[in-house]
Amino acid sequence: ANGRVDLGHGSGGRAMADLVSGIFREAFANPFLDQGNDQAAFPTPRGGRMVMTTDGYVVSPLFFPGGDIGSLAVHGTVNDIAMSGARPLHLSASYIVEEGFPLADLKRIADSMGRAARAAGVTIVTGDTKVVERGKADGLFISTAGIGELPDGLDLSGDRAEPGDVVVLSGSIGDHGVAIMSSRENLEFETAILSDSAALNGLVEAMVAAAGPHLKLMRDPTRGGLAATLNELAHQSGVGFRIEEAAIPVKPEVAAACELLGLDPLNVANEGKLVAVVSPAGADALLAAMRAHPLGAEAAAIGTVVADDQQFVQMTTGFGGGRIVDWLSGEQLPRIC
Amino acid sequence: ANGRVDLGHGSGGRAMADLVSGIFREAFANPFLDQGNDQAAFPTPRGGRMVMTTDGYVVSPLFFPGGDIGSLAVHGTVNDIAMSGARPLHLSASYIVEEGFPLADLKRIADSMGRAARAAGVTIVTGDTKVVERGKADGLFISTAGIGELPDGLDLSGDRAEPGDVVVLSGSIGDHGVAIMSSRENLEFETAILSDSAALNGLVEAMVAAAGPHLKLMRDPTRGGLAATLNELAHQSGVGFRIEEAAIPVKPEVAAACELLGLDPLNVANEGKLVAVVSPAGADALLAAMRAHPLGAEAAAIGTVVADDQQFVQMTTGFGGGRIVDWLSGEQLPRIC
Ligand SMILES: Nc1ncnc2c1ncn2[C@@H]1O[C@H](COP(=O)(O)OP(=O)(O)OP(=O)(O)O)[C@@H](O)[C@H]1O
Ligand SMILES: Nc1ncnc2c1ncn2[C@@H]1O[C@H](COP(=O)(O)OP(=O)(O)OP(=O)(O)O)[C@@H](O)[C@H]1O
Ligand SMILES: [Mg+2]
Ligand SMILES: [Mg+2]
Ligand SMILES: [Mg+2]
Ligand SMILES: [Mg+2]
Ligand SMILES: [Mg+2]
Ligand SMILES: [Mg+2]
Repeated sequence: ANGRVDLGHGSGGRAMADLVSGIFREAFANPFLDQGNDQAAFPTPRGGRMVMTTDGYVVSPLFFPGGDIGSLAVHGTVNDIAMSGARPLHLSASYIVEEGFPLADLKRIADSMGRAARAAGVTIVTGDTKVVERGKADGLFISTAGIGELPDGLDLSGDRAEPGDVVVLSGSIGDHGVAIMSSRENLEFETAILSDSAALNGLVEAMVAAAGPHLKLMRDPTRGGLAATLNELAHQSGVGFRIEEAAIPVKPEVAAACELLGLDPLNVANEGKLVAVVSPAGADALLAAMRAHPLGAEAAAIGTVVADDQQFVQMTTGFGGGRIVDWLSGEQLPRIC
Repeated sequence: ANGRVDLGHGSGGRAMADLVSGIFREAFANPFLDQGNDQAAFPTPRGGRMVMTTDGYVVSPLFFPGGDIGSLAVHGTVNDIAMSGARPLHLSASYIVEEGFPLADLKRIADSMGRAARAAGVTIVTGDTKVVERGKADGLFISTAGIGELPDGLDLSGDRAEPGDVVVLSGSIGDHGVAIMSSRENLEFETAILSDSAALNGLVEAMVAAAGPHLKLMRDPTRGGLAATLNELAHQSGVGFRIEEAAIPVKPEVAAACELLGLDPLNVANEGKLVAVVSPAGADALLAAMRAHPLGAEAAAIGTVVADDQQFVQMTTGFGGGRIVDWLSGEQLPRIC
């Protein structure tokens, strides 16, 4: 990339992973960051453990079908906390605003953020507001950080997938990214495509209760989509995945939009879905609990973990064929979140 | 402001305070945010209390005499934690990068951030990287959040200043803002002006140990400078301040640069200074402890808290004259931090 940051570095793919490990992990050098999960777990002074996470939001447009940058910022941070099994507690909000931004939009976004936080049971306890000159930002960027309380005895981590484990997906993929792209390209479909942006902490609570120690890890397939998430997990656990295309829920309208936009739903970001890896003994109970929750109604077992030195994600396609699902295939989708 | 955000909304003055209370406090509605301090304190599940804080950094230029955006982001967040008396523990780092940004600069900034964190005794446990298209940001913005552990029995808060209390300043004012402005305007002085950017948690530890319950509150006079901080505190505590111009340390080269730039040092941001309010019985011990620490060597009592329904900050000037120090006087200084 010629010694410069390019859009691929922000796409959730291999270029980003290399940037994080080559620059940030080395510079910040500590075992918490090296856990390599979407959140860091650490012991708290009085006993017990907490987690911390952060995300920047640069989504364009700021308002999109199914949400806005404010609700998205809450959902994304709540979800990265929840993927560890922790109970989300408090969030921070850093606003970077471009000069000239309409105060009415700022209020609408802050109100939406507050509503999303209340609905998810978290409080935004601290914030910051910076203004940069016209042309030096793009309306509004929000960075949230969040902390949560980790129950004793839970040890979910991306390095825990083992051959034989079952891979579960909570619902249809591609909704968020396609909603953003469609609204950006001004596409209209018969069935409106809404972002799936949602707080998953309630679903996670039900999953932990149902599967107990059988649950090995959870991750939300955001930037880079399901493909990036499975490749990340394969890498982190030193395993391969074998998934069934037919088992992966994709809404017909999302499939149609992907066709039109030249996207593969496997690479498209989600903001209200999760992937879980569970030992076979816990899979049925987990799926039942997920399906009983509104945000997991279409939960499906989509494949298994396999031994694979090359850490490939292999997918069985329609007529018994197969292909390798790489995390760099498909278009780069900047500003999706 | 015509229904739009302007640079004044980010200046640390009254416009920003109105924006925060009119939009954000109302939207996020919770007692933690309503504390109105630079950090929020909350009880932790296992007992004890923690604090959380966040800041966005949009400083321009990214590298300046005495620091860079990376070290500044660590110092600023460590200091907002420390102002509560809490021990800073962990930080998060959200990077928003403009396409085309040099990887070598990114590495230099991350390395500086890591060094600053290690020096301050905190770990950067989690991060995020987003890339926006060329022209949609200005090189790099960083948002950090941080958490700290609050010792039992400490209750420092901006609403605790009472008439008779002594106001202490840890050292000279204006260094950071003038260093940025000088480097932005390409000014050269005989004595180079360096930012005072520094982590104050060590100094704070010594202050808490020395003054105990006599210490009422601390705050770092960042955006808006000493003038904004005292006005904020006056408002929060419902008191006035009477300060002595002659007692406020200003480096001669900073005074000269302010003259040239048309700035009042009272309105210029600092990033390694603090204001403390202490009851008279604890003032001497506090000052002695501060002066024994390298970052408090020039600590001075600069005035007292007075009863004042109008919550004015009054300053006695050179020849027995006086004036009201408002938080909106002086120029707006965008992108100072
Ligand atoms: N966008 C926001 N949302 C919620 N609260 C905010 C927001 N911006 C500022 N605040 C709150 O306003 C108060 C003052 O924040 P401010 O940023 O001025 O403090 P600071 O971080 O100490 O100063 P600086 O940012 O100059 O370092 C804090 O209580 C902060 O939580
Ligand atoms: N600038 C950074 N500094 C330090 N660590 C980083 C940085 N960017 C990313 N990371 C780390 O890389 C890992 C992956 O981060 P990533 O942002 O991809 O996860 P995510 O937040 O779950 O995904 P998304 O941002 O798409 O929601 C995490 O461990 C994160 O802490
Ligand atoms: Mg995330
Ligand atoms: Mg995630
Ligand atoms: Mg701030
Ligand atoms: Mg601050
Ligand atoms: Mg502060
Ligand atoms: Mg992230």
